[in-house]
Amino acid sequence: QMPRGNLETIHPRALVLSAVRKALDRMNFKAAMILMKKHRINLNLMFDHNPKLFLDNVKEFVQQVESVNNINLFISDLYAEDVTVTMYTAAYQKTTDDKEFPNKVNTVCDAVRQALIDNNESKYLLSILVTYVRKTTPELEKALLLVRALRGLKPPDQVVVSAEEALKYLLFLVDVNEMYDVALGTYDFDLVLMVAEKSQKDPKEYIPFLNLLRQLEGHYKHFTIDRYLKRYKKALDHITKCGAEHFNECVSLVKEHNLFTEALQLYLPGSQQYKHIATLYGEYLSEKSKDEEAGIMFVKAECWEQALSSFQACKNWRQIFCMTARLKYSQDKEVDIAKKLSGQLKELRRHQEAAVVLEQYVMDVEESIVCLIEGCLWEEALRMMYKHSRTDFIESNLKTALVETCEHQMDTLNNLHNDFEKYTNRLDAVRKQKEKERLEFLESGGDLGADADLYSDTSSATGESIQSSRYSSDSRQSAYRGDKKQKKAQCQKSKYKEGSNSRSRYGCLYTLIKTVDNLRDEIQSLLKALVQFHFDKQAVELQKKYSDCLSDIEKAIPDIWSDEATENRKEPVLGPMTTANSIAQAVQRGQVVSEKQDPIIRIAPTLNKDKKWKLSTLDCGKS
Amino acid sequence: QMPRGNLETIHPRALVLSAVRKALDRMNFKAAMILMKKHRINLNLMFDHNPKLFLDNVKEFVQQVESVNNINLFISDLYAEDVTVTMYTAAYQKTTDDKEFPNKVNTVCDAVRQALIDNNESKYLLSILVTYVRKTTPELEKALLLVRALRGLKPPDQVVVSAEEALKYLLFLVDVNEMYDVALGTYDFDLVLMVAEKSQKDPKEYIPFLNLLRQLEGHYKHFTIDRYLKRYKKALDHITKCGAEHFNECVSLVKEHNLFTEALQLYLPGSQQYKHIATLYGEYLSEKSKDEEAGIMFVKAECWEQALSSFQACKNWRQIFCMTARLKYSQDKEVDIAKKLSGQLKELRRHQEAAVVLEQYVMDVEESIVCLIEGCLWEEALRMMYKHSRTDFIESNLKTALVETCEHQMDTLNNLHNDFEKYTNRLDAVRKQKEKERLEFLESGGDLGADADLYSDTSSATGESIQSSRYSSDSRQSAYRGDKKQKKAQCQKSKYKEGSNSRSRYGCLYTLIKTVDNLRDEIQSLLKALVQFHFDKQAVELQKKYSDCLSDIEKAIPDIWSDEATENRKEPVLGPMTTANSIAQAVQRGQVVSEKQDPIIRIAPTLNKDKKWKLSTLDCGKS
Repeated sequence: QMPRGNLETIHPRALVLSAVRKALDRMNFKAAMILMKKHRINLNLMFDHNPKLFLDNVKEFVQQVESVNNINLFISDLYAEDVTVTMYTAAYQKTTDDKEFPNKVNTVCDAVRQALIDNNESKYLLSILVTYVRKTTPELEKALLLVRALRGLKPPDQVVVSAEEALKYLLFLVDVNEMYDVALGTYDFDLVLMVAEKSQKDPKEYIPFLNLLRQLEGHYKHFTIDRYLKRYKKALDHITKCGAEHFNECVSLVKEHNLFTEALQLYLPGSQQYKHIATLYGEYLSEKSKDEEAGIMFVKAECWEQALSSFQACKNWRQIFCMTARLKYSQDKEVDIAKKLSGQLKELRRHQEAAVVLEQYVMDVEESIVCLIEGCLWEEALRMMYKHSRTDFIESNLKTALVETCEHQMDTLNNLHNDFEKYTNRLDAVRKQKEKERLEFLESGGDLGADADLYSDTSSATGESIQSSRYSSDSRQSAYRGDKKQKKAQCQKSKYKEGSNSRSRYGCLYTLIKTVDNLRDEIQSLLKALVQFHFDKQAVELQKKYSDCLSDIEKAIPDIWSDEATENRKEPVLGPMTTANSIAQAVQRGQVVSEKQDPIIRIAPTLNKDKKWKLSTLDCGKS
Repeated sequence: QMPRGNLETIHPRALVLSAVRKALDRMNFKAAMILMKKHRINLNLMFDHNPKLFLDNVKEFVQQVESVNNINLFISDLYAEDVTVTMYTAAYQKTTDDKEFPNKVNTVCDAVRQALIDNNESKYLLSILVTYVRKTTPELEKALLLVRALRGLKPPDQVVVSAEEALKYLLFLVDVNEMYDVALGTYDFDLVLMVAEKSQKDPKEYIPFLNLLRQLEGHYKHFTIDRYLKRYKKALDHITKCGAEHFNECVSLVKEHNLFTEALQLYLPGSQQYKHIATLYGEYLSEKSKDEEAGIMFVKAECWEQALSSFQACKNWRQIFCMTARLKYSQDKEVDIAKKLSGQLKELRRHQEAAVVLEQYVMDVEESIVCLIEGCLWEEALRMMYKHSRTDFIESNLKTALVETCEHQMDTLNNLHNDFEKYTNRLDAVRKQKEKERLEFLESGGDLGADADLYSDTSSATGESIQSSRYSSDSRQSAYRGDKKQKKAQCQKSKYKEGSNSRSRYGCLYTLIKTVDNLRDEIQSLLKALVQFHFDKQAVELQKKYSDCLSDIEKAIPDIWSDEATENRKEPVLGPMTTANSIAQAVQRGQVVSEKQDPIIRIAPTLNKDKKWKLSTLDCGKS
């Protein structure tokens, strides 16, 4: 009992809670229940107070609480939240949610139900129904089957609750239409009728429908019901068992509801039906532009022609020639395909593969060698020449290509180097300006509006103007040979352009640095070829240029990235100089910091320093 | 003039400086010079005060200062530092070093010398010598030639300073032995004798040496002198011009002083000498285990046999077969080489290349197919089968390999996933412990010693125990197939083990995450092959497992990395609760922060999220 008089006004809830906790600790569930109901303490506390204790003594709980109503009340009040952490946090001072029972509601429902069944199933029938309904995904079918079981029992058999009453109670908890669908899903028409009678449904509507269903046979009946209930996977399962005469219905079900994978699992690979559905799936994937997967699906369907065109669409040249072999194409036909393909692969800068196609399928060694030289695959080109005794290509093609490529790479590196310096100088200027204006701002006491202006000013100054100059240099580069990496870099750049200004500023630098860093392999292989053919002078120049680029970048990276990261620590956020404005400003800076979480801005690009690209033969030193 | 009396004690230097500055601004160099000498103001200020003004008026400076001694004093006092930034910073308040003149000493020396020559060359002869000597790399040869020129003039010809005097002065500035070498370097024996006479050297020593040199001819004389002076590059240049009879000396010079590159530039590619030196260089590179470069060098030397063995040493298979073709090896011999090579390539997990070697040089299609299957290169294996009409391998080898590889990948992923969870749980535990002890520490007021202990404690708890379990699981993985990536990961791991504890903790996680992330391509190609051959069930499982791994890792990364980065902001470094201990502790934390600059710890690994690996056909969804 609560103390009375003046004391009543002082923290009664805390005192009640303390009493409840004591009762629960003593496993006096009955007393706890009375107290909680009286003072409107959330019933979840019954479990949350000490989950393990409750679950271990759930039988005791049922015996003590005893009343069906109270148990129903407890179950109905359950929810996932732990009230010791949320509602009654002051009394418990728990800081973290332990999540010992990740699905609390289900755990309690199942435990209580078992206790009720063990205690007195018929007495607690309604409570049992509640435990089914209250589960996170309600087990309505089980509840319904329980009600049906009641029907079989005759009234004198100790039946406390009749089937009629139980159903009524159930329909009070759950919407009748939902229940009707659940009943239909059991394929038990008696159950359906039982529920339907309680509903507002017009018997003229559901009786004919049920009669129609009754006329159907086994799987087909089930299929029709499942389709009506939109349980398409179950429907599919049943229709596949209905034999060939219903295969059309199966196909339309699969197509309508995109059940290809499920359907394929139900038929044997190689069977007519399997192939039919796999073909449909292939066509579906093809429409979705998933050409590679479509191709594989057509292979599974043994539709080689269609597989071939899918593999052609995604330029999977290995599979293409598997298919032409399967289809026993004539050599002429294969050569045509191979020629077209090699052109496409070259466009994609996949020269190595294009060369294999040219050598092995077009049977054109000369074209193959030219393709390798075009792709700057010097060693492979040499191997091909020696293999087919066509070393005349060294003088006629290889050497000029080497010199041209070297010149091109020098140009590229010069452009990249210049751009890099432009960027870093600009970044430097912006930072100095920013720092200067910040100091002025601090001295003047500051006006936040002006500061906000300053931010957008400086960042836009870096963003656009350099961006455009960058683009022009890029077009110069790609005019010569459409380098794959540079193309990628370009597309990334346009992405950054849309982003925030500081993002674009850092993004461009990041991309530029990565572009330079990624040239290691290409440059090394070029250097080796140049040296082999006595273009030592050009090789020395190229090595020096690239080495300079890399070392300049490496030196600049800590400046570019770490500076920004430490910049925010310099600001005096609190101290004798603080004004309301300066705090507001600090908060504004805070936003800038969170913007920096963006990895492009926050994290410097890492260089592949492990990758050795230099030739020691070209390192003459400085003296 | 300075004010006298009591005022003399108050900042006289500031007043003097102000007077000097005014004089310099008015270009009154003479007055400035007097003031500076009197009050021992650093003479560098003459230039540093306003570099541009000084350089524009250097003639005026020479005219005003006039005295040879004063000019010598000024030149001798020059050094690179800008005294307005360092010594007289208070008077100038410059914050940054502009570096308008990156090499100040040289700039001033050259400018003053020109002014002196224009004004009165013979009068200022000694000053001119000083301007040569004081350059950052003294131009002693020029100074010496100037002295020699004096000799020719007869005393009455307006000669203020005699050659004798000039040489004496020069030797007062520069060590005589150094000067002797410089004289010798001009190849002018008169000059040598002139210097030698002033030195402590014994004429019985140098006279015979000079006589010996006199007997030699042109280039060979120069070569001998240069070698004596250790100017090996010049020596090389001269010896190459001495014809074939001295080639042996050239070779030994090159070998002794490692002048291969320089020597190769001096001979024509294809010439006997060029080939000889290139061969030597190749052997030298070979000794240094630079096999690839050695190979290229042997190619340049047209030593095909040696090139072949170098390329064999670095497994450059393309070049190997270029060489065998060059050498016109019989097919048997080539097949032997190819067989050995294919085995080595397989060991290096370069199955694709091994298969090409087997197909095109060993001419063993069966082995080639088996090799591709072993390397999990499913599509290439299929292509090879179709190309050579050996599709029987699909049933006999490919399908079993697919299933085995799938099982193996499942094991690998399971191990990696388990390890990942172990690591993160451990990290979590350590952090909680750390946080708890930190709070306790703050509450208790703290004892720094205990805290220091705590740090080493927790980190060692993570480090070792898991490390060992990690190793055991690794051995399980590599027992099946020595995966290249995993091997690399292992070796990286052992590297981390030696490092600091927090480094090893993060390093292991980083490596593990990268290992999982790098499997994308491999898993995708396996999935495609599995599906194609109707192993849909296994493919679904594998895709699910890998997808789970990746999503768990992706979810955990922000926790693992950003937590650590923000942790340091929580610490109250200053405030009402501050004690000497807590500040000391904050400093100690500062060290921890600086340790975090290590990219492994500071930067989370980035996942290749752009790389799509999933097959949509296998994504059945959850329902």
